[in-house]
Amino acid sequence: MRISELADAGGVPVHTVKYYLREGLLMPGRATSRTRAEYGTEHLDRLRLVRSLVEHGGLGLADVRRILDALEAPPASRHDLLGVAHESLPGVRVEDPTADSDAVVLEALADAGWPVEHDGPALSSLIRAVTAARDAGVPLTRHSLARYARAMRRVARVDLDVVGDAPSAAEALRIVVVGTVMVDPVLAALRRVAQSVESADR
Amino acid sequence: MRISELADAGGVPVHTVKYYLREGLLMPGRATSRTRAEYGTEHLDRLRLVRSLVEHGGLGLADVRRILDALEAPPASRHDLLGVAHESLPGVRVEDPTADSDAVVLEALADAGWPVEHDGPALSSLIRAVTAARDAGVPLTRHSLARYARAMRRVARVDLDVVGDAPSAAEALRIVVVGTVMVDPVLAALRRVAQSVESADR
Repeated sequence: MRISELADAGGVPVHTVKYYLREGLLMPGRATSRTRAEYGTEHLDRLRLVRSLVEHGGLGLADVRRILDALEAPPASRHDLLGVAHESLPGVRVEDPTADSDAVVLEALADAGWPVEHDGPALSSLIRAVTAARDAGVPLTRHSLARYARAMRRVARVDLDVVGDAPSAAEALRIVVVGTVMVDPVLAALRRVAQSVESADR
Repeated sequence: MRISELADAGGVPVHTVKYYLREGLLMPGRATSRTRAEYGTEHLDRLRLVRSLVEHGGLGLADVRRILDALEAPPASRHDLLGVAHESLPGVRVEDPTADSDAVVLEALADAGWPVEHDGPALSSLIRAVTAARDAGVPLTRHSLARYARAMRRVARVDLDVVGDAPSAAEALRIVVVGTVMVDPVLAALRRVAQSVESADR
């Protein structure tokens, strides 16, 4: 298909396709003349992925590029899949809290029965997010944090079951990376609906 | 305290305090001379809240203003607290998906045993988020969505227990609104840690 057809099928303006091509987020088409190129389904898949990550995932181009790089060089086995995925994912956006909440987080995770590595990037994001919430006056105790942790463990089980069904390590990596970014808003929306359902129930 | 002391205590530059004052996000201090004003702890609490919502919650000033308005006019009873809270909260950020996923969402929520109102803002955010994730190639089935729903119901139970402990309807509203925004990143970070823990466990 031509660039205009690719843009139509991907639901973006032609100038966005050209922008992604210039930025290297979309691979070049097969040149058919000096000014024309032909694009295939692999371009459309890539265009949809980039568009989703930017528009719905709210990621910057640097984050998208890091994710695409990870997807293009998948690990040979499923071992370390999560490590690669978490490195390519943008950190949960939280900035410089005024004080740390290390102790309450580590105690809560111990209560939830999690053997936590003390130096992972996910844990430091967690500590910063908890500190920011407490700074904003949210009463996030060790007890409620442990209960949140147990609930999110169930979410992670679903995540890993879905990954386990993937036919290859490359596809599994794609699901972890894209699924982690794109399912966060699904979970946030489910939480709001669940609050209403639970409130009506009480 | 003076404006410079207020800024120091709140961890922001003086020009940010002035900006919040100009935008009406922070109430004026008590004038002590033609060019000076005195600020108290209520100003510091408000400054910290605004800063948290903007920096950590990632909200725009219009969203912050809507939340502050809701906090200033709390409902007389706890009845409808969630309705007011959800209206003041910014929608989960998802834009124009290419096709709808109404059916799979409604089936999944029915599987999870949720009696869902078909026209709430939270439900339409959910449908858009699911559609966007599926557009991006995340295999989000009715079955996995129902499992996510059950996990998020547990999250909502913690949310409502924390709210139930609040001493007044005004404080309860503050916790729902601020807690929903500020705990989302905590849950996202917990999910990533849980993925690692669960993966190591398998």
